[in-house]
Amino acid sequence: TTSTIWQLLGPEQLNIQLISPAGGVGGKRRDRANMSQQAVNGVQCRGKVLTLDNMNPNVKRVEYAVRGPIVQRAVQIEKELKAGVKKPFTEVIKANIGDAQAMGQKPITFLRQVLALCSYPELLEDKKFPEDAKKRAQRILEACGGNSIGAYSASQGIECIRQDVARYIERRDGGIPSNPDNIYLSTGASDAIVTILKLLVCGEGCDRTGVMISIPQYPLYSAALADLGAVQINYYLDEDNCWSLDVKELRRALSAARQHCNPRVLCIINPGNPTGQVQSRQCIEDVIRFAKEEHLFLMADEVYQDNVYAEGCKFYSFKKVLFEMGPEYSSTVEMASFHSTSKCYMGECGFRGGYMEVINMDPEVKAQLTKLVSVRLCPPIPGQALLDLVVNPPQPDEPSYTTFMKERTAVLATLAEKASLTEQIFNTVPGITCNPVQGAMYTFPRITLPQSAIDKAKAGQAPDMFYCMRLLEEEGICLVPGSGFGQREGTFHFRMTILPPTEKLKVVLQKICEFHLRFTQEFS
Amino acid sequence: TTSTIWQLLGPEQLNIQLISPAGGVGGKRRDRANMSQQAVNGVQCRGKVLTLDNMNPNVKRVEYAVRGPIVQRAVQIEKELKAGVKKPFTEVIKANIGDAQAMGQKPITFLRQVLALCSYPELLEDKKFPEDAKKRAQRILEACGGNSIGAYSASQGIECIRQDVARYIERRDGGIPSNPDNIYLSTGASDAIVTILKLLVCGEGCDRTGVMISIPQYPLYSAALADLGAVQINYYLDEDNCWSLDVKELRRALSAARQHCNPRVLCIINPGNPTGQVQSRQCIEDVIRFAKEEHLFLMADEVYQDNVYAEGCKFYSFKKVLFEMGPEYSSTVEMASFHSTSKCYMGECGFRGGYMEVINMDPEVKAQLTKLVSVRLCPPIPGQALLDLVVNPPQPDEPSYTTFMKERTAVLATLAEKASLTEQIFNTVPGITCNPVQGAMYTFPRITLPQSAIDKAKAGQAPDMFYCMRLLEEEGICLVPGSGFGQREGTFHFRMTILPPTEKLKVVLQKICEFHLRFTQEFS
Repeated sequence: TTSTIWQLLGPEQLNIQLISPAGGVGGKRRDRANMSQQAVNGVQCRGKVLTLDNMNPNVKRVEYAVRGPIVQRAVQIEKELKAGVKKPFTEVIKANIGDAQAMGQKPITFLRQVLALCSYPELLEDKKFPEDAKKRAQRILEACGGNSIGAYSASQGIECIRQDVARYIERRDGGIPSNPDNIYLSTGASDAIVTILKLLVCGEGCDRTGVMISIPQYPLYSAALADLGAVQINYYLDEDNCWSLDVKELRRALSAARQHCNPRVLCIINPGNPTGQVQSRQCIEDVIRFAKEEHLFLMADEVYQDNVYAEGCKFYSFKKVLFEMGPEYSSTVEMASFHSTSKCYMGECGFRGGYMEVINMDPEVKAQLTKLVSVRLCPPIPGQALLDLVVNPPQPDEPSYTTFMKERTAVLATLAEKASLTEQIFNTVPGITCNPVQGAMYTFPRITLPQSAIDKAKAGQAPDMFYCMRLLEEEGICLVPGSGFGQREGTFHFRMTILPPTEKLKVVLQKICEFHLRFTQEFS
Repeated sequence: TTSTIWQLLGPEQLNIQLISPAGGVGGKRRDRANMSQQAVNGVQCRGKVLTLDNMNPNVKRVEYAVRGPIVQRAVQIEKELKAGVKKPFTEVIKANIGDAQAMGQKPITFLRQVLALCSYPELLEDKKFPEDAKKRAQRILEACGGNSIGAYSASQGIECIRQDVARYIERRDGGIPSNPDNIYLSTGASDAIVTILKLLVCGEGCDRTGVMISIPQYPLYSAALADLGAVQINYYLDEDNCWSLDVKELRRALSAARQHCNPRVLCIINPGNPTGQVQSRQCIEDVIRFAKEEHLFLMADEVYQDNVYAEGCKFYSFKKVLFEMGPEYSSTVEMASFHSTSKCYMGECGFRGGYMEVINMDPEVKAQLTKLVSVRLCPPIPGQALLDLVVNPPQPDEPSYTTFMKERTAVLATLAEKASLTEQIFNTVPGITCNPVQGAMYTFPRITLPQSAIDKAKAGQAPDMFYCMRLLEEEGICLVPGSGFGQREGTFHFRMTILPPTEKLKVVLQKICEFHLRFTQEFS
């Protein structure tokens, strides 16, 4: 019987191509009709409907290193530790992902009080909760269908929250107007980024949409471009100049790309992920001028806008700079800017809150955007509520203000301290070179690897993956190899978050340094 | 200056094709290089980067009637009412979407208590909260990174919640085993449905993946297929037999489709949306046999599994039937089943919680699926927590049990009452024919429209859209025209939810009936 054949061979040996050439990808119409007849005749060993060979090829090309093989191995090791397997360490430290609360950062009290009130409005009667938290919760609930966060919202997001976001942007940018109709709430920033990219993708062959992304990049971008079948255009950040962006390099990349695709989009991450740089105002101006000249849609990933630590560095939003360059720019350059509740001082990754502001978008395209987001109904309401509190925090005359400011300041001050600590300690080790962590939550140090280690890793594994895997097995520290973000040929890096608590971070840095020396010695 | 030109013409008149033939879609490589030079020379009036003409054509094809033009008009009317504009009604009743809490359904106390505890764990000390709610909250928090719902989870979902889901499925299906590794938590069911469709899409031209969907359908399916560029294969439900599914019709549709695409997927919604039927066990068996014979991947949308009202009807999961058909089926037929926190007795739409179970999926494809979902990091944690409570509700020996059961039963009993009421009242009116609402949350009555009304609407508008728009303007009732879901040529319907509170529902039904008579008279 069929099931016996299945049991004997196992699904991996039953391949469509082998058993029924008619049914494979590329099979002709007529063959498919025959196949159906074969089935009726009892020739049924056709293997799986869905296999690696006949699935969506774009999905196969997707890679996402931040949660790739090294993280899967880390999870496995955690289970081994739990099961009592002896290791040279007692816990796995996951410094692979910007997940603040997983690393012990406490949630901001005010945010969580309001969320509890929204979830269970009976608590509005409870004297434990401050009045301003209740006021915020009541306002959010009144804006919800049936006064409940369990109802769907408008697909673009709850209207009063979009108004609050617009006012927040106006304050941030010194009064430059923001229109709530241009605000779209989202399921984290990733959701909004993918949506805008999706709008922009069209054409085939040499006319296919090309998208410029920085190298190193945050792999959401390469993953989304693979998924959408768009052309990835790499421009390299200048490691020797603190990962700065040079417009000459943008020109080089664009000009090369014009030979084989239709470049339409320029993506910038500022403050930088994974590279931690903060762009100067001058650089942003140059980028905007370039985008205008070259007729590119600008995507500004600004989710780390509160995470600026280095002296002399300041966050300038692309929108602010755009508008200060005058109407020649502010009325023409098309742009989308992204923000999130997952980063900054909040670190509320689990709620998947975020927004984007679109600027100078064609009204007909905006209508298409609104239609597209409506298919997924709406972003999660708890995330929308959280975002409202971020853009509309306690004011000096409100009871929660002092605690809120104390908590916020403490998180950001600790991050600044850890940023500086990380740079200092790494740079004491020969073979590790680390740029200052000016902003965001990551360091992306360059590591010098001995040639014999590079050779040893050659069998299909990137040398920095080999390095990080060894570090994980020997020290229980989980980093992401630089190859997952892209890097100049022949250079090697890793990304590490600066999020572990200060004392633990010191231990982690120390262990990595010792490992590096040991590794270098072993392969020298 | 450029900005003056912009101001004079307005963006809609500045078209890429007009001003710079070189820069339009389909422009050749060399032309693009020239364009850059033109820009430098000051010829800069190139219009928008992103226009309706050069955006993603798949996105343009997307339609989602549940939030389409009629709902946009409803929102506008609400604003007009607020601004004091006089109308023949005082409020808009939105019966267009299955949004229970927006229609006044109260959240289940236990669910919201646990969510409040998870959001603000200080409440774990509060004596107001029952012990079982605290126990659930503590268990969820312990499974979260840093014991916080603000941390990311594994991309597949929190492990202990996936275990709870698997046990829930086993109980539901009378002990048929469910493996937590086959459970993927999701951002509502829509997210999971689109993900599975995405895996399955490949090929070009006659080899493009075809997906069979019922007509009438829930427009998420047609929207996702348009977005993915897959081929939609319509099979018609039998209105004369209470919207039942006949395998002969599946065969007809499949055979016709094989002429122009590669049919690989069969989607079923049971209980039905928008048609409210509940499939018999026999029908499910026939469908499974058909899927096996024709080598199709089965997608079972079972989000209304608790919403069964009609006597003699019972929900059978596709998985249960599949496994009871013996190993010849249970070890071969590939399937995904979808569930959600938005429907049933919970109606927690705003949290965007859901899961899917995949069965017999090729392990290599499963690895690709896991990789794909990792790009979006994780589904929202509050939605995951909520799902955990749905699959792991209070037990008879726990303090919240009585209240929980009372609330749950009340919701389902009221829905059953409203289902029957709806059918009865509609069927009293000549020109409205309504099948029993056996399950789900909708009625999809057929309406007879006078020929002169059909003619009047012909100018680009579907006749049932014309009808629904008139109803909205005259009575303030927002329905979705049948054309948004698909229907047999020459027939007309609308979808209405049965969710308004009973007294209000009676008024709504009465008003629709009166409107129908008036409309029929006007055009006769």
